[in-house]
Amino acid sequence: MDKMWNQYPDIKKQLKQVLKIIEDNSRCKDKVIENSILELVNSGGKMLRPAFVIIASKWGKNDDIGKTNSLASVVEMMHMATLVHDDIIDDSKMRRGQETIQSKYGKDYAVYIGDYLFCACFKVLASEGSLQSIKVDSKSMSRICLGEINQMNSKFSNKISIKEYLSRISGKTAELFSLSFYIGAAESGCSEKLSREFWNIGHDVGMAFQIIDDILDYVGTDESIKKSAGNDIKQGIFTLPFLYAVKENRKAFEEYFDKSHYDEEDIKSIIDLVRKNDGVEKSKALALKYSQKAFKRIERLPDNTFKDILREVIEKLLYRNY
Amino acid sequence: MDKMWNQYPDIKKQLKQVLKIIEDNSRCKDKVIENSILELVNSGGKMLRPAFVIIASKWGKNDDIGKTNSLASVVEMMHMATLVHDDIIDDSKMRRGQETIQSKYGKDYAVYIGDYLFCACFKVLASEGSLQSIKVDSKSMSRICLGEINQMNSKFSNKISIKEYLSRISGKTAELFSLSFYIGAAESGCSEKLSREFWNIGHDVGMAFQIIDDILDYVGTDESIKKSAGNDIKQGIFTLPFLYAVKENRKAFEEYFDKSHYDEEDIKSIIDLVRKNDGVEKSKALALKYSQKAFKRIERLPDNTFKDILREVIEKLLYRNY
Repeated sequence: MDKMWNQYPDIKKQLKQVLKIIEDNSRCKDKVIENSILELVNSGGKMLRPAFVIIASKWGKNDDIGKTNSLASVVEMMHMATLVHDDIIDDSKMRRGQETIQSKYGKDYAVYIGDYLFCACFKVLASEGSLQSIKVDSKSMSRICLGEINQMNSKFSNKISIKEYLSRISGKTAELFSLSFYIGAAESGCSEKLSREFWNIGHDVGMAFQIIDDILDYVGTDESIKKSAGNDIKQGIFTLPFLYAVKENRKAFEEYFDKSHYDEEDIKSIIDLVRKNDGVEKSKALALKYSQKAFKRIERLPDNTFKDILREVIEKLLYRNY
Repeated sequence: MDKMWNQYPDIKKQLKQVLKIIEDNSRCKDKVIENSILELVNSGGKMLRPAFVIIASKWGKNDDIGKTNSLASVVEMMHMATLVHDDIIDDSKMRRGQETIQSKYGKDYAVYIGDYLFCACFKVLASEGSLQSIKVDSKSMSRICLGEINQMNSKFSNKISIKEYLSRISGKTAELFSLSFYIGAAESGCSEKLSREFWNIGHDVGMAFQIIDDILDYVGTDESIKKSAGNDIKQGIFTLPFLYAVKENRKAFEEYFDKSHYDEEDIKSIIDLVRKNDGVEKSKALALKYSQKAFKRIERLPDNTFKDILREVIEKLLYRNY
């Protein structure tokens, strides 16, 4: 488990129980499925989404820890299912420092392992959740699918706008953050109004988080940039720093829009152009805007001993060093 | 819609409403998803599974047609989702006389279209079904996944037994038949005992149906055999007629177990060997056994005007000409 949770023993304890639930749900006759789910869940992901469920539940009148942990396991399994299927699309070889399922066991297995995880989500939800949360969950999953499809379709597209980028990451990333906060609040007895406010916090945090992730691809040492940004650009995925820079100076990028393949030289030039044309700075400003919105919302939450913890966790996430 | 339903205007009317629900649930921003789901749903599948939901609901105390139709749409969308993902694994080019989604739009799209259909299933279930049926549904979906994985894993395996084959088709085919009958009965207010009996009918019909499907690959004109059985054998999928023949005369097949690729000549020889060694006859006997079990169960169902219809529909399915 990520060391960030060492400081918060209560949350860490619950997250360990969440891992156990996921492990229990991975047990099945097919050992490849079982092992690949176990490898993925124990590969040291941050467990952000289940932690959001747990933290939001602390505002509820009737926080049933067993139920909260089950719901937390659902959002993590959903996240895992999308990772497994996304790796098929992106043909990714590595994930969290380990070989991806699609690379290790083949795309065929990866399709079914993702499906199996989806089924496990709804199995747990039907046991522990309410019809209302299943409705919210399945709607969110559809939106996440659409976000991923949008990303796939806009590869190498010279038409993608900043608005479209924001709508894409809203589906791809912020949606599951929102869902996690919302479900943790709503299912532990928070009012619909408070649960919706947690939804909004998830949205703002998710947007800032994804923009920062996309910025990190364009900063750092030459070596690290080559590895990360190189990867996105190579796939024709244009993120916010790129789009801001294009808006600033479209002409400079024109030659790259005609290509559907970039070599090392192209990638280096694109990164330079993005940085020269304020792509990184403007993206940082937008990430900060979303972060500040999130902190304001957190400030306005009803008092609770977990408010400081929530603020600290989000600070760690959003004030990473560029 | 398949012409078999012309005889049963009440069912046909409901099936048309089911198609409408699926069409409504396919609407989304992404037009490729929307169109591919529409093409698939209107490609003239038999709509067996939704018809089973509808027929079983007629035994219920409180058949709410709107709800029944929604649940019927869920099982058909589940079936569609598995077809879309299976076509990725099998690299199938054609399905129901049309180009498959994976062939037309690429495997990437097919992954997400299947996922999108899964989400739609649970969205509708959460609106119209009960937690109990979501539980049953998600467990069934897991089993269907495992059945497909088992088939994928046993390709070209010389170790697969008749018992394993039966367990595989029980997951791959009979499970969704059972689920359809069960959910139609249970959600319209049948007793758990009666609903379980419908589950069993679905199992027996599903087993017979799949065995017959597998037999049809080995009979017929030379031309039709080459098209169908050729395809399964080429992929190393060994079905019941093959397994019975191997049990009869393992030695004759030994040379084929060492290969992981069959040419036209091999396929012709394998088909001849299967027929010579009673593979087809024995499979027919087992299909008949499951069919008779199903009909006995149907006979024992409480009296209802739909009993004759159920019997006739199942007869049409199971007494196809070999």
